[in-house]
Amino acid sequence: MSPTAFKTSFRVSWTDTDAAQVVHFSNYFRFFERTEEEFYGHLGFSFNDFTNKGIWLPRVESFCQFKSPAKFNDLLEVELTVEELKEKSIKYGFKIFNKESAVLLANGYVVIVAADKQTGKATQIPKDIMEKLKPFSK
Amino acid sequence: MSPTAFKTSFRVSWTDTDAAQVVHFSNYFRFFERTEEEFYGHLGFSFNDFTNKGIWLPRVESFCQFKSPAKFNDLLEVELTVEELKEKSIKYGFKIFNKESAVLLANGYVVIVAADKQTGKATQIPKDIMEKLKPFSK
Amino acid sequence: MSPTAFKTSFRVSWTDTDAAQVVHFSNYFRFFERTEEEFYGHLGFSFNDFTNKGIWLPRVESFCQFKSPAKFNDLLEVELTVEELKEKSIKYGFKIFNKESAVLLANGYVVIVAADKQTGKATQIPKDIMEKLKPFSK
Amino acid sequence: MSPTAFKTSFRVSWTDTDAAQVVHFSNYFRFFERTEEEFYGHLGFSFNDFTNKGIWLPRVESFCQFKSPAKFNDLLEVELTVEELKEKSIKYGFKIFNKESAVLLANGYVVIVAADKQTGKATQIPKDIMEKLKPFSK
Repeated sequence: MSPTAFKTSFRVSWTDTDAAQVVHFSNYFRFFERTEEEFYGHLGFSFNDFTNKGIWLPRVESFCQFKSPAKFNDLLEVELTVEELKEKSIKYGFKIFNKESAVLLANGYVVIVAADKQTGKATQIPKDIMEKLKPFSK
Repeated sequence: MSPTAFKTSFRVSWTDTDAAQVVHFSNYFRFFERTEEEFYGHLGFSFNDFTNKGIWLPRVESFCQFKSPAKFNDLLEVELTVEELKEKSIKYGFKIFNKESAVLLANGYVVIVAADKQTGKATQIPKDIMEKLKPFSK
Repeated sequence: MSPTAFKTSFRVSWTDTDAAQVVHFSNYFRFFERTEEEFYGHLGFSFNDFTNKGIWLPRVESFCQFKSPAKFNDLLEVELTVEELKEKSIKYGFKIFNKESAVLLANGYVVIVAADKQTGKATQIPKDIMEKLKPFSK
Repeated sequence: MSPTAFKTSFRVSWTDTDAAQVVHFSNYFRFFERTEEEFYGHLGFSFNDFTNKGIWLPRVESFCQFKSPAKFNDLLEVELTVEELKEKSIKYGFKIFNKESAVLLANGYVVIVAADKQTGKATQIPKDIMEKLKPFSK
């Protein structure tokens, strides 16, 4: 069975663009994170549910291929998939499309680790959150 | 006697620009803050010397007039002046020039308040820091 | 008759925050602009309808008072009003509220000018756009 | 012979941080680009020397591993190396260190392509610029 993808959309803002009149590449990583935030919101929790338990979610690795530029006012559709779900880490895959043309603009991933705020060491993802993530895992 | 001004310079980065191929207006406020940070560094301290004493420096008001655009790779000179130095607040004035042409690009101000991190209430600026700021005050 | 306000809302993203664990003050100016963009979208046009006619909309002045901090995941409601509508310039007023508590977090304004892309000089706001803005003007 | 590395340093600004009180991961990609800009400045040219010839330098791929957090006011040293120099593309490698502790904070790369502004197609990197880049190539 193929994994469920979470989808959301963003309108490109003027502040997302640069002097080449396209979205600055660093902002794709911000769209990744905003999508992760909306995914958590969709599941009924937020980063705050981690920090309240003394856990940060630092990003340990990130990658993106930029295939086609996005321009001001374009409507982007971002597709999040759970590529790997481990006890202490998650790898999210992202695809960003131009929602109107369906052209793939960018694809990439982010690996995050649950880290104890005190020690900085990797720690278990809380069980209740893990249960909510599992249905999206491959 | 006229107050001493602190000056620093920044090269406009590609990420500072937007699709109009000029520095996005919100980034002038970031140049203001980076200048304030360098001013503190010049005086031998940083925001950390406030936070270590349980004090935040929230901005309570900010204003800027944008007179002429800055472009990628322009060298900016920012001039900071201490417009008002009170027990619990500071008003910094800023002027941003194109360093090569000497054209005034923007001028504005930021009002900051020393706030207790616990209560959120306005509190005294630490004395040692106050002493270092006084020579720059009108 | 009191002018009509345009309202939209934003969820505070992790990238909007700073080390004081609140929204960085410069980002309020970005929320202003994103609200202006959504206002235009609501009226059926965008910045592109200006640039296609050879017109930029540079910001010439901006101000904001920061009254109460916004935190990660807060839902913000931004209210835009047309404070002044002139032949060549517009002053937009903004109020940002915490949507759940209804507390006013920030209020400010932005003055924009229609500028000819070639000459850089102030020019008339296109008539069809002017007609759409008038009902929101005081 | 090992390739020459270009080095520059940046002080972490408050605006670079997020609510975890560390540099937001997307800003490492901005430090990459600012280093590339300073590298070009060191060689006596800038992005403008490309755009003036009708060439953009879109990023087609970027990657970063985040090994240790950077905090406000930390002094970062960024090391740029030319990993691959092809007729139409360049792969830059980056290492970001805490300059005081010499701890490696992040390492990654960016692949850029010279693209014709009109057609969007890959094009030759101008010869004079190529000559300046060669001494840094492996």
